[in-house]
Amino acid sequence: MSAAHQMLRTARRTGRTLEVTVLEAGQFTSYSACGIPYLVSGEVDELDDLVARTPEQHRAAGIDLRTGQRVTRLDLDARVAEVEGGDDVAFDQVVVATGACPRMPQWTRLPDGAPVGGVRPASTLEDARAWAQELAPGERVVVAGGGYIGVEMVEAAVRRGLQVTLVTRSRVLSTFAPEVGAEVARGMREVGVEVVEHAAVTDLEVEDGRVAAVRLRERSVPTDHVVVALGVVPATDLLAHTDLLSERGTLRPDETGRVAPGVWAAGDCCEVRTRDGAWTYAPLGTHANKAGRALGDQVAGGDLTFPGVLGTAITRFAVGEVHLEVARTGILDHQVAAPVDPVTVVTRGTTASGYMPEAAPITIRVSADRVSRRLLSVEVAGGPGAGKRVDAAAAVLWLRGSVDDLAWMDLAYAPPVATAWEVLQIAARRVAELIDQPG
Amino acid sequence: MSAAHQMLRTARRTGRTLEVTVLEAGQFTSYSACGIPYLVSGEVDELDDLVARTPEQHRAAGIDLRTGQRVTRLDLDARVAEVEGGDDVAFDQVVVATGACPRMPQWTRLPDGAPVGGVRPASTLEDARAWAQELAPGERVVVAGGGYIGVEMVEAAVRRGLQVTLVTRSRVLSTFAPEVGAEVARGMREVGVEVVEHAAVTDLEVEDGRVAAVRLRERSVPTDHVVVALGVVPATDLLAHTDLLSERGTLRPDETGRVAPGVWAAGDCCEVRTRDGAWTYAPLGTHANKAGRALGDQVAGGDLTFPGVLGTAITRFAVGEVHLEVARTGILDHQVAAPVDPVTVVTRGTTASGYMPEAAPITIRVSADRVSRRLLSVEVAGGPGAGKRVDAAAAVLWLRGSVDDLAWMDLAYAPPVATAWEVLQIAARRVAELIDQPG
Repeated sequence: MSAAHQMLRTARRTGRTLEVTVLEAGQFTSYSACGIPYLVSGEVDELDDLVARTPEQHRAAGIDLRTGQRVTRLDLDARVAEVEGGDDVAFDQVVVATGACPRMPQWTRLPDGAPVGGVRPASTLEDARAWAQELAPGERVVVAGGGYIGVEMVEAAVRRGLQVTLVTRSRVLSTFAPEVGAEVARGMREVGVEVVEHAAVTDLEVEDGRVAAVRLRERSVPTDHVVVALGVVPATDLLAHTDLLSERGTLRPDETGRVAPGVWAAGDCCEVRTRDGAWTYAPLGTHANKAGRALGDQVAGGDLTFPGVLGTAITRFAVGEVHLEVARTGILDHQVAAPVDPVTVVTRGTTASGYMPEAAPITIRVSADRVSRRLLSVEVAGGPGAGKRVDAAAAVLWLRGSVDDLAWMDLAYAPPVATAWEVLQIAARRVAELIDQPG
Repeated sequence: MSAAHQMLRTARRTGRTLEVTVLEAGQFTSYSACGIPYLVSGEVDELDDLVARTPEQHRAAGIDLRTGQRVTRLDLDARVAEVEGGDDVAFDQVVVATGACPRMPQWTRLPDGAPVGGVRPASTLEDARAWAQELAPGERVVVAGGGYIGVEMVEAAVRRGLQVTLVTRSRVLSTFAPEVGAEVARGMREVGVEVVEHAAVTDLEVEDGRVAAVRLRERSVPTDHVVVALGVVPATDLLAHTDLLSERGTLRPDETGRVAPGVWAAGDCCEVRTRDGAWTYAPLGTHANKAGRALGDQVAGGDLTFPGVLGTAITRFAVGEVHLEVARTGILDHQVAAPVDPVTVVTRGTTASGYMPEAAPITIRVSADRVSRRLLSVEVAGGPGAGKRVDAAAAVLWLRGSVDDLAWMDLAYAPPVATAWEVLQIAARRVAELIDQPG
């Protein structure tokens, strides 16, 4: 919808006439998938609160939006979209913004293919509504998957008073450094969550079509519900017959959003480029919004481009006395390749001056290249105000600044919100000092 | 003390032998002057909490620290510091880190020169202790001055249950844009503070040596106390006989901290350079700490330099239901000179996704140059998490980035801490769009 609206805006400026048709498989438009855990937790009151714009509002803006229209195949030669149970829709240009679907292993289904009762992802508003209705205090839930959605659904379930077990293949938040992910695992255990790392659900015990327990390799965990949060796969079946898909099944649009003449794509069905030019699959709403906007502008004759990503991400685990924000930006350790020689330091400090009631612990991990001194990545975990601190580091990365820039630049200080030497800068300085050390 | 410690650290590395003597006029060292309002408010329990390092701790680190030693004059020919009521102290090199003193108008003193009772700045720990002891619920206090300290002392006094009047020559937080300062004035009024802008205290009514009322041009305001928060003047009398002082009475050290051969200076007695090379008086602890550290390194043979400032600042006004953070970074409007042609937009949004309980209003003002598109300044006012958002903008300014960098870079999003289009980026995008508009 970002692309569609931007097309119309730009078309007004460029004087083009565009007829914009949107085919949406579901009934909802422009909803915040990221908000689903907060609806489940009860922090958000109404499903409708998550809907930024209704189909009616989009139509009022001049978009021919058709809901309940699932496109099964794009015929790029005939220039038509084939719609499930409906007529083909012809196009001159097509934008693929089909997003991604939750990864659903075999064990989530009964032998007849129907979903096991009590087992569901947290992906759509329909899922959100079901979880909000079904999770009852005192019940047991297993969350399968320790990524963002897993962590956020654990938070939601604990807030609702359930007994929660998190099962994750590697570590909690494994895209973060171990020191950072460990903070979240610790916080979860503090509020009574059973955290099972380096384990995976291999099968379910099912009674009367409903889950009774999850089986791990070495034991069973009795449960009333299973949240499936095992990541997503790009929803690109409609182009499976073409040569446009990568090995991972993604589209790889250029910075204008183009994948082929007259074929455009943006969002979770696509990979994005890092600022260093590498392709990465980072299905996040922020990238989707930006890429969609640039693409919409281009379709209508504008020149906006999507300039790529850094790998910035943030989440929170907050229940009762525990309030942890975790965030990261920059290259992942396993992506570092010679000649880059990372120097990495983990620093602990506080989010506010130590004497203030606002002061909460914060852990910061800074990595920079020994030779060029270029900043490589920053991760943080800590109390309120910790997470968005990565934005300053992201800006340094965006502009290819050094660890010295981060250490010495002029950041904001007042006792309720920072220390006189901002902890982010102490952390950067320590890396700089380590680089400077002879030998 | 930053300089002194860094000298010793660097000397260990460079193999130099330094004898470091510190002459301190008072009894306290390394205390957080910025923390004083929070001691007065009661948020900080003990005076000692504001002391980061005691004299004993400094001495244990190998510094010959002498308290109660006021240097009245530096004889740069004889290389001695003249100490009030004591012996001269000889030096090879001298560091001037005397800071600044509160501006105290004539009306703060009785005809015999003694201070009027109940009238005092909020500058030293002795002031802090006096205010913490004397301000009693139900009493009246006038805060003279609408800068950071004024705003913070208003907050402290309201929290203690006093009736507060703020009197300021121009606007509340006049170094901020009107839209931003006005938010704070509004917040103050909301909690019952009388805010008198465009007015100044011309005199006091004194009874038995104690303040009874302040006189403004057109009326009197009865009061029990007056907080003098009218800014500071550099404490450079000890060099008044030299040609080292600027017209403003400041020192102007180069980026190594040097002002003359063997004479160094850092902190609130100095001006600092902006990143664009202009001198500015910005007496803030962050600059003092950084400049002191660079200077200490240089004195001992290192090569750290103080790379200048952006004009970043932050404060907070939080009482009861009102929680406002205000922050800024970048060039001030009146400093903009041709050929720079600023395009400025004020944008309103929320600190978190609108459906989250954390969402609070935020106002962002972004200014960029029409031709180069370079970011010029960013100011924010808003709820929890608003203030430190300027750090990301400060990083862009530090690296001379454009308004497009700010608009499109990869910042952190999750519903409890941001909107999917981060409000800082919406604000930047609107400036970019305004620049792009033909005509």
